[in-house]
Amino acid sequence: MTEPGTIHRAVCPGSFDPVTNGHIDVIERASRMFGELIIGVAIDTPKKTTFSIDERVGFMQEVCAPFANVRVEVFDKLVVEWASRVGAVAIVRGLRALSDFEFEFQMALANRKLCPDVETVFLMTREDCSCISSSMAKEIVKLGGPVDQFVPACVVAALKEKFPG
Amino acid sequence: MTEPGTIHRAVCPGSFDPVTNGHIDVIERASRMFGELIIGVAIDTPKKTTFSIDERVGFMQEVCAPFANVRVEVFDKLVVEWASRVGAVAIVRGLRALSDFEFEFQMALANRKLCPDVETVFLMTREDCSCISSSMAKEIVKLGGPVDQFVPACVVAALKEKFPG
Amino acid sequence: MTEPGTIHRAVCPGSFDPVTNGHIDVIERASRMFGELIIGVAIDTPKKTTFSIDERVGFMQEVCAPFANVRVEVFDKLVVEWASRVGAVAIVRGLRALSDFEFEFQMALANRKLCPDVETVFLMTREDCSCISSSMAKEIVKLGGPVDQFVPACVVAALKEKFPG
Amino acid sequence: MTEPGTIHRAVCPGSFDPVTNGHIDVIERASRMFGELIIGVAIDTPKKTTFSIDERVGFMQEVCAPFANVRVEVFDKLVVEWASRVGAVAIVRGLRALSDFEFEFQMALANRKLCPDVETVFLMTREDCSCISSSMAKEIVKLGGPVDQFVPACVVAALKEKFPG
Amino acid sequence: MTEPGTIHRAVCPGSFDPVTNGHIDVIERASRMFGELIIGVAIDTPKKTTFSIDERVGFMQEVCAPFANVRVEVFDKLVVEWASRVGAVAIVRGLRALSDFEFEFQMALANRKLCPDVETVFLMTREDCSCISSSMAKEIVKLGGPVDQFVPACVVAALKEKFPG
Amino acid sequence: MTEPGTIHRAVCPGSFDPVTNGHIDVIERASRMFGELIIGVAIDTPKKTTFSIDERVGFMQEVCAPFANVRVEVFDKLVVEWASRVGAVAIVRGLRALSDFEFEFQMALANRKLCPDVETVFLMTREDCSCISSSMAKEIVKLGGPVDQFVPACVVAALKEKFPG
Repeated sequence: MTEPGTIHRAVCPGSFDPVTNGHIDVIERASRMFGELIIGVAIDTPKKTTFSIDERVGFMQEVCAPFANVRVEVFDKLVVEWASRVGAVAIVRGLRALSDFEFEFQMALANRKLCPDVETVFLMTREDCSCISSSMAKEIVKLGGPVDQFVPACVVAALKEKFPG
Repeated sequence: MTEPGTIHRAVCPGSFDPVTNGHIDVIERASRMFGELIIGVAIDTPKKTTFSIDERVGFMQEVCAPFANVRVEVFDKLVVEWASRVGAVAIVRGLRALSDFEFEFQMALANRKLCPDVETVFLMTREDCSCISSSMAKEIVKLGGPVDQFVPACVVAALKEKFPG
Repeated sequence: MTEPGTIHRAVCPGSFDPVTNGHIDVIERASRMFGELIIGVAIDTPKKTTFSIDERVGFMQEVCAPFANVRVEVFDKLVVEWASRVGAVAIVRGLRALSDFEFEFQMALANRKLCPDVETVFLMTREDCSCISSSMAKEIVKLGGPVDQFVPACVVAALKEKFPG
Repeated sequence: MTEPGTIHRAVCPGSFDPVTNGHIDVIERASRMFGELIIGVAIDTPKKTTFSIDERVGFMQEVCAPFANVRVEVFDKLVVEWASRVGAVAIVRGLRALSDFEFEFQMALANRKLCPDVETVFLMTREDCSCISSSMAKEIVKLGGPVDQFVPACVVAALKEKFPG
Repeated sequence: MTEPGTIHRAVCPGSFDPVTNGHIDVIERASRMFGELIIGVAIDTPKKTTFSIDERVGFMQEVCAPFANVRVEVFDKLVVEWASRVGAVAIVRGLRALSDFEFEFQMALANRKLCPDVETVFLMTREDCSCISSSMAKEIVKLGGPVDQFVPACVVAALKEKFPG
Repeated sequence: MTEPGTIHRAVCPGSFDPVTNGHIDVIERASRMFGELIIGVAIDTPKKTTFSIDERVGFMQEVCAPFANVRVEVFDKLVVEWASRVGAVAIVRGLRALSDFEFEFQMALANRKLCPDVETVFLMTREDCSCISSSMAKEIVKLGGPVDQFVPACVVAALKEKFPG
């Protein structure tokens, strides 16, 4: 149970390499459900990122500017420990498809074992974002294709610069 | 964006015929994430229920008594219209398994079309509740098996009375 | 291999009880890929239909009128035998989601065993139709909800008449 | 750990209404892996069966005759209690497809809670049996189609008699 | 709608590194459904290929020789742009299993956004090819196992030369 | 059919890099079902292992010591050929989740083609082990998190030494 007047804070972690319209859709939805939403951009990532931590944070700050109760942080080490430290009641994850679901479920179970007081909640990405991932956007740019409908404008330019094709 | 001090209200709808330990687990988790949680017991159900609406509400009120920010209502007609009418920002659904996911996803998509301002969020049921459903509990009682670890005490007695086996 | 000039005929079978916008989307896509497309409305269905065979055919003829290479037939008995008899090279099925996929795969395997010369091909339903099924449309109408975005206009009226809610 | 010389006994339960070539494939495989295999034909089934318990047992005894370490029993009530009572170390289940898997997993989890000393093991049905189920065989016969490749000879005749089509 | 006499052309793209019996099965099925089928061997592939583009095209031409309405091309850049440029109404993809399905669905959705006039159609691979992939064939050869039942004869020899084991 | 008194031998192969509590759970279950269980630690692995073959075997021998009918071997080349050579009737695989299932099914089908006399059987990992994999354990240690509940004690120390974090 929670005190009346408690602000429920949630986090939305990821590598965001780079942020896509699918991510933005999830952030917007989550911002309406929680008192505060902290986007966590991961410093430690399993593979080398295309964009630096500063670039990834910069894109995210630009797209999150319109949301008054959303702010951007960086985190390193275990996501669930960071979530607990900032006082989050929930980790928000967007689900695009079934394969996401399986992986996310296993992550959420492991996180629950590591830190039982932080819940993981899943939101459904908007249907027309369900085919978008950071890696697919990069793949399309490498092949010379248009990504304007998949990522925000600031990212389109940056991707084309990275992969002149 | 939401006003500071806004209480975020969520709903948790179902037929709860009868409520199981899996449902209780989801309710407890959701109660920690939202300012208010309203459990909606459905009057209209696709098939005839084992327990009457009064019985289903009664069980639910008993198990929800310990949660100060949770209350129980009945609803009829479309769940998403009820959710919107009571001012909910989110419909909470527990996911036990993959097959749940598919069905729930289609429901959530349809609900989003009918009422775009109510989000659906998914929580993961505790692992040891993942095999529990109302119908499985009833099936086990019909076959003379024990259901003490699957449903709350008040329901165990009621099930045995319904299905003397 | 096929003769030059051969018209490739496909069939699109179903109970269509009633036809939805999802079905229409699949029919339109298939009509662009094959020389001729025959919609097969099933007389024999595993459960009792909401609409009579004449009603179901009537709705279908109305929605198929704009497609010059599409015509509507009724069939009874085994779908794959009918498909073979009308000279189809392919049975077209729309896939909305994963759960469709599994069931459809088993049906297609069984059909291939019964009639190896008729192939089953799967098309992806448009994303915003992916939550629509005949039974969901009926369920929504029963609960007094709007179905204008899920089924064609002629069906909206008929559904409301069947289920005055 | 088990004593040297212990005979490991497994059970293979089902409603077998009627037995299919897919079931026979699983029985044959399981009979090679365990010292003894007991086929359990369920008296209690969630829905009314097409064939009587005597008919279902009769078909099964006929198809199991060639396997020297396989015998047929009937059981009622909970499958896992029966399995434990006959001293089985394992319940054998055939998996045809993904959808089987989900349902079977939930059943196996529930059974493990009810009786932790009986394990559930899954075998993969032969690929060309993966589209066969008792209900699909019945559906095909009702529609006048051939089922010779789906069920054993004794069942073909019985199905045609039940559903003269 | 299409003009009478229109030849419907489809494409079947891939990296084919190397072509397997599963690919050949899909090509044969697709060749019976469309007036013309163009196999597209990708020059740009996400990871380094085992065989050169000339080798991959060579194997494919050898196995496609028996099909009179099938020809082989190379393509680079985006598959859907190539498909549109050669006038294809459909991209044909073979599905072996559920995991294929998810990935293929997301690709098909992205392709539909990039080029709405090219449809993606899915065929079911023959059951006994459902475990075959190019990478599994390579893995087996590396471990000294036989691949005669998984890839065409010309590829068996080439694989053994690449991976003398 | 098998001779009375036959000892049914099964194998449980893997790279075990390193062994987790999930593996141990499966080994314990399998040891109760078969007369003999041989754990096979793979020398050949698709990617470079974190631990040497000697380290991986050492961990396994330590955790298998309590099981009197279990012994540890190394194997190279094809798993199914090794399984057949040691006289196994079954390859035991633990399933944690749906995504395992798909991959494992394809492997099992390929193995059945290569060696039809060795069956693959699947056991369900204990629920609270279902989120554990060797790679997830390594990822957590790299990020400075605790893994005591995921891997045996001897592995905890070795992981911390490998990844001082």
